Amino acid sequence: MIEMSNNSSKFETAMHPEPPMYGWLKDLFPICRSLTGNGVRATLRYLQKVVPELRVHEVPSGTVAFDWTVPNEWNVSEAYVENERGERVIDFAINNLHLMGYSEPVDAWMDRKELDAFLYSLPEYPDWIPYVTSYYTRSWGFCLSQKQRDALSSGRYHVVVRSTLAAGSLTYGEILIPGTMADEVLLATYICHPSMANNELSGPVVTAAIASWIASLQERRLSYRIIFVPEIIGSIVYISKHLHELKKNVRAGYVVTCVGDERAYSFLPSRHGNTLADRAARHVLRHRAPGYVAYSFLDRGSDERQYCAPGVDLPVASIMRKKYPEYHTSAEDLAFVTPAGLKGAFETYRECLSILENNDYYRTTILCEPQLGKRGFYPTISRKGSASKVSEMMNVIAYCDGQNDLIELSDTVGLPASRVLEILQTLIRHGLIERLATSSC
Amino acid sequence: MIEMSNNSSKFETAMHPEPPMYGWLKDLFPICRSLTGNGVRATLRYLQKVVPELRVHEVPSGTVAFDWTVPNEWNVSEAYVENERGERVIDFAINNLHLMGYSEPVDAWMDRKELDAFLYSLPEYPDWIPYVTSYYTRSWGFCLSQKQRDALSSGRYHVVVRSTLAAGSLTYGEILIPGTMADEVLLATYICHPSMANNELSGPVVTAAIASWIASLQERRLSYRIIFVPEIIGSIVYISKHLHELKKNVRAGYVVTCVGDERAYSFLPSRHGNTLADRAARHVLRHRAPGYVAYSFLDRGSDERQYCAPGVDLPVASIMRKKYPEYHTSAEDLAFVTPAGLKGAFETYRECLSILENNDYYRTTILCEPQLGKRGFYPTISRKGSASKVSEMMNVIAYCDGQNDLIELSDTVGLPASRVLEILQTLIRHGLIERLATSSC
Amino acid sequence: MIEMSNNSSKFETAMHPEPPMYGWLKDLFPICRSLTGNGVRATLRYLQKVVPELRVHEVPSGTVAFDWTVPNEWNVSEAYVENERGERVIDFAINNLHLMGYSEPVDAWMDRKELDAFLYSLPEYPDWIPYVTSYYTRSWGFCLSQKQRDALSSGRYHVVVRSTLAAGSLTYGEILIPGTMADEVLLATYICHPSMANNELSGPVVTAAIASWIASLQERRLSYRIIFVPEIIGSIVYISKHLHELKKNVRAGYVVTCVGDERAYSFLPSRHGNTLADRAARHVLRHRAPGYVAYSFLDRGSDERQYCAPGVDLPVASIMRKKYPEYHTSAEDLAFVTPAGLKGAFETYRECLSILENNDYYRTTILCEPQLGKRGFYPTISRKGSASKVSEMMNVIAYCDGQNDLIELSDTVGLPASRVLEILQTLIRHGLIERLATSSC
Repeated sequence: MIEMSNNSSKFETAMHPEPPMYGWLKDLFPICRSLTGNGVRATLRYLQKVVPELRVHEVPSGTVAFDWTVPNEWNVSEAYVENERGERVIDFAINNLHLMGYSEPVDAWMDRKELDAFLYSLPEYPDWIPYVTSYYTRSWGFCLSQKQRDALSSGRYHVVVRSTLAAGSLTYGEILIPGTMADEVLLATYICHPSMANNELSGPVVTAAIASWIASLQERRLSYRIIFVPEIIGSIVYISKHLHELKKNVRAGYVVTCVGDERAYSFLPSRHGNTLADRAARHVLRHRAPGYVAYSFLDRGSDERQYCAPGVDLPVASIMRKKYPEYHTSAEDLAFVTPAGLKGAFETYRECLSILENNDYYRTTILCEPQLGKRGFYPTISRKGSASKVSEMMNVIAYCDGQNDLIELSDTVGLPASRVLEILQTLIRHGLIERLATSSC
Repeated sequence: MIEMSNNSSKFETAMHPEPPMYGWLKDLFPICRSLTGNGVRATLRYLQKVVPELRVHEVPSGTVAFDWTVPNEWNVSEAYVENERGERVIDFAINNLHLMGYSEPVDAWMDRKELDAFLYSLPEYPDWIPYVTSYYTRSWGFCLSQKQRDALSSGRYHVVVRSTLAAGSLTYGEILIPGTMADEVLLATYICHPSMANNELSGPVVTAAIASWIASLQERRLSYRIIFVPEIIGSIVYISKHLHELKKNVRAGYVVTCVGDERAYSFLPSRHGNTLADRAARHVLRHRAPGYVAYSFLDRGSDERQYCAPGVDLPVASIMRKKYPEYHTSAEDLAFVTPAGLKGAFETYRECLSILENNDYYRTTILCEPQLGKRGFYPTISRKGSASKVSEMMNVIAYCDGQNDLIELSDTVGLPASRVLEILQTLIRHGLIERLATSSC
Repeated sequence: MIEMSNNSSKFETAMHPEPPMYGWLKDLFPICRSLTGNGVRATLRYLQKVVPELRVHEVPSGTVAFDWTVPNEWNVSEAYVENERGERVIDFAINNLHLMGYSEPVDAWMDRKELDAFLYSLPEYPDWIPYVTSYYTRSWGFCLSQKQRDALSSGRYHVVVRSTLAAGSLTYGEILIPGTMADEVLLATYICHPSMANNELSGPVVTAAIASWIASLQERRLSYRIIFVPEIIGSIVYISKHLHELKKNVRAGYVVTCVGDERAYSFLPSRHGNTLADRAARHVLRHRAPGYVAYSFLDRGSDERQYCAPGVDLPVASIMRKKYPEYHTSAEDLAFVTPAGLKGAFETYRECLSILENNDYYRTTILCEPQLGKRGFYPTISRKGSASKVSEMMNVIAYCDGQNDLIELSDTVGLPASRVLEILQTLIRHGLIERLATSSC
């Protein structure tokens, strides 16, 4: 009885083919990424095939950004520890986590005890290789599982790190997709982690898929700024170069990280937790994943630290999966992240952005209730319970007073914004509701 | 020890004789009411005997009100279904619920199967006749209990509806009782339902009793607008004719409906739930009926839908009894509604209005606590616990800062407004408190 | 790894020797205090030895203060009831609670039954002598334990009260300790209770200890107004004499009363519960005594009644111990109050005042996070969990946006203000945080 068009929604999801995110992730997994270096460049080149709009930028070593300085560029050709029999007992070629990030060059013999001071392992997780870095103090080290370490016999070892730490540049990627409005959505993710599949390859592949979807939209009011940066130094450099325009234009933003597994969703709010980004994300999670874990900003650990810093104050939050013990170890492997996990994150973020695209104010065009019966929405014969069939529509109308945006309207009537938007579009077609001059964000 | 006058309160309840509401209800019950027609006029004529101030208005069929049009007037002289033996197996003369509201004229023979498409019953409540209408699409039908329907044998039936559906008018009643202020209280109830005692004769008889009490008050600051209208179309017509003055003057209003039984009270808030009408009603229910059912505006089903529509935005709520399965069936009979149920509703609404009449700001006239002892309120000998006897009075004084109206003051000190008003009046007589230049609503 | 200075904090607690509060309390306990009289003067003279800054003021009997009048001065030389054998069965010399406060002179013989109308005891606590007064109506009476009363045989008794009730004055003490700002903290306590150790000697001795500590501070921004007054009439007289300057200068204040035992702490808020005094007290109690009893202003019983009265509206709250059955009886003795109880109250109030002294706004001096590693706060090698060591510091920085005062900042990051202040002072020394031009209160 209730006519609801299926093609009117701007939540155009069915038309878009499922992006092959897991395939991208498998391809990118082996590359050795760090704050800087050729692994970052290779990763961005790969992503350019997915999103041709991606532009690569280089920032010279030594560039100052607020309290920070871009470090030297780091590249590794080979790194291993071999025993007296010439057997490589720890080898960067097998797993790039074995080498501490930013290890300086070494070529030295030392005994087992001396070597031990340069080894990192996790006694509590004896099978996992930890991820360790020393970006700003010259050092070197090898990471290995506790079992591997325990198996190292006494004797002498030959330590070889063939790396370069020299003036070069920090590399990042940026996609700018204009809409009809100057208002922007910022998406940020990381391309600085070596072979860990969740933190951080889930972020770049989901972000690339979203960028590709956005670029494909025929109607698009908001503009999008999507960045692939090394964590901390990369976002600080980016903010320092674009602070004025970010503060002027960004209405909502998300850090896309740790989203590839199938465990519970989680939400990390912005500093005060009340921005448009927070509101859209909470709305979506409440309906899609009601059991999601709600963290406090005090639980933060990612670049919301920079975007939400005092004086920067961007409206940036993060939808992630919940925290996990495998974090920053070799256990974040290709089995930890799944196609379904990536798809869930993609759809969740896509729903957030669709809400932002439609987050307008809506108002009834007539006073009192419209007569729904003469438009075929209401049964012509009124009997016990007959109104319940149109209660969703009547509730949407009742709160369409031009004072609530789509998110607040949806929260008030207790429906997903996607469903409310369908109803609104039907009512707009019948001239009963008008969309107000936009102030979408 | 504490002198509290008994005659000072404006909650003048003892003086007023109990209105014979149940008697009125029994007299009005048999009349066949609908959106329009002579049953409505007969009902209003009867109520004019109770409240001579009631004025009757007629609005011609075809009058447009916002999205709606006043339908033709409907009157019925006779309606029945008889079998081949001439026995009337369904008869409007026995219960006017048997005929679907606004049934068009019919005189036809049909077999049992053909007849079935025009019958309405409730399988889940096999003894009850449902209430069914078809106001805006020409149709006809008969309503009956499921048992009665099951007992209809095969064979042919003679269906007769002797009704008229013709240009005429919609009839409603209005009582305007002026006070010393232009600020108004709106009370609205329905006179469009056939023989159902709760929805809706409890509303008109309780409203008439309240109107009679208001008219009898010697002091009265607020003005009262009390309307008896057919549901939906009646309120929409009334709003369309009086929108400007309603928006200008109405400070609080209530839809009085479904109040005649003795089950739990319920509260249906205004659209945003924060008007003076909401505050007064919640305050009264909290103290009189702490177990009341608090509905959301999303649970609404009555003309708050019109009064609270976007752009109309009147401060209208409703105190009712809770929802009940007998609703809109013959089981809402004279046993369902009781004298005690009607009396409870009358007293509850009377208390709301008494609070509105006195909802002023009050302020102490002296700094620091007054010396209650020298005025006989406080024991002259101070010992453990002696202050507790005046703690209510001291609490009222403590919050009399001219910033809280009576409702908020009462909520703050945790007492019913009726008790706070007694205390205030004692303190005013002693010159310790002053009533501020009124802004009652 | 984290350098935290030990000498930078303004919470200079270790340097100050423990004040001998319990000794003062024992010395003051036997003195017969009342609203007026030589006991009050003796008490203030004693406290002047502890705090030489204390000034004594006399207000003549008959002075009008708002709704009140200073009563005659009362002094007692002797008071007893003796039996026919000349034995003193009730004697003021043994316990000054035996005589009703403000008893007028009497010398009369009467039989046991006649005497009974002038006796006060507590059947529910048969061993305790109650505290009873009749300040504003001439009367006399004796207070005794129920056991003592039950043991009074029939026969005749000689009642002797050698007291004077004559024009004199009300005596109070005042300490004014200026700071660099005009903004004031008010501390108020009572010196009108006879031999009860908690209500009220705990208040004056803790207040004297705090006054002594304040006077000893080398840096002090706030000014302090500390008053020792008789309850109700004393605070009303004080307010009437100083209303303008109190309203102009007082930013926070506390009534110090009933603080000497070791039972749970309690909090009595100001009238609206949202002043700086409330915020500081709740913050301190939340961290020091999380199980504290939170009273409503409706539970008040002390001079917050005057300071928070409408039109007076001072930001005054009270940290006390929780209510106790021994209140206003001889069971509030020297065993009820303990050195540890007094010390706890002293430290709690001292922490409140220290927070008020430092309740500034703080702001980061750089954008994005500072690089903590190069300042030695952060481990140079980054591995799983290494950030947790500086999470307190990073949280403080994250909310240092110049919008939150110390209390709100501390509440936001979930740390005691004393700890936050340590962190802030470290960051200020490193130039990462600046203290904004003060608006401390």
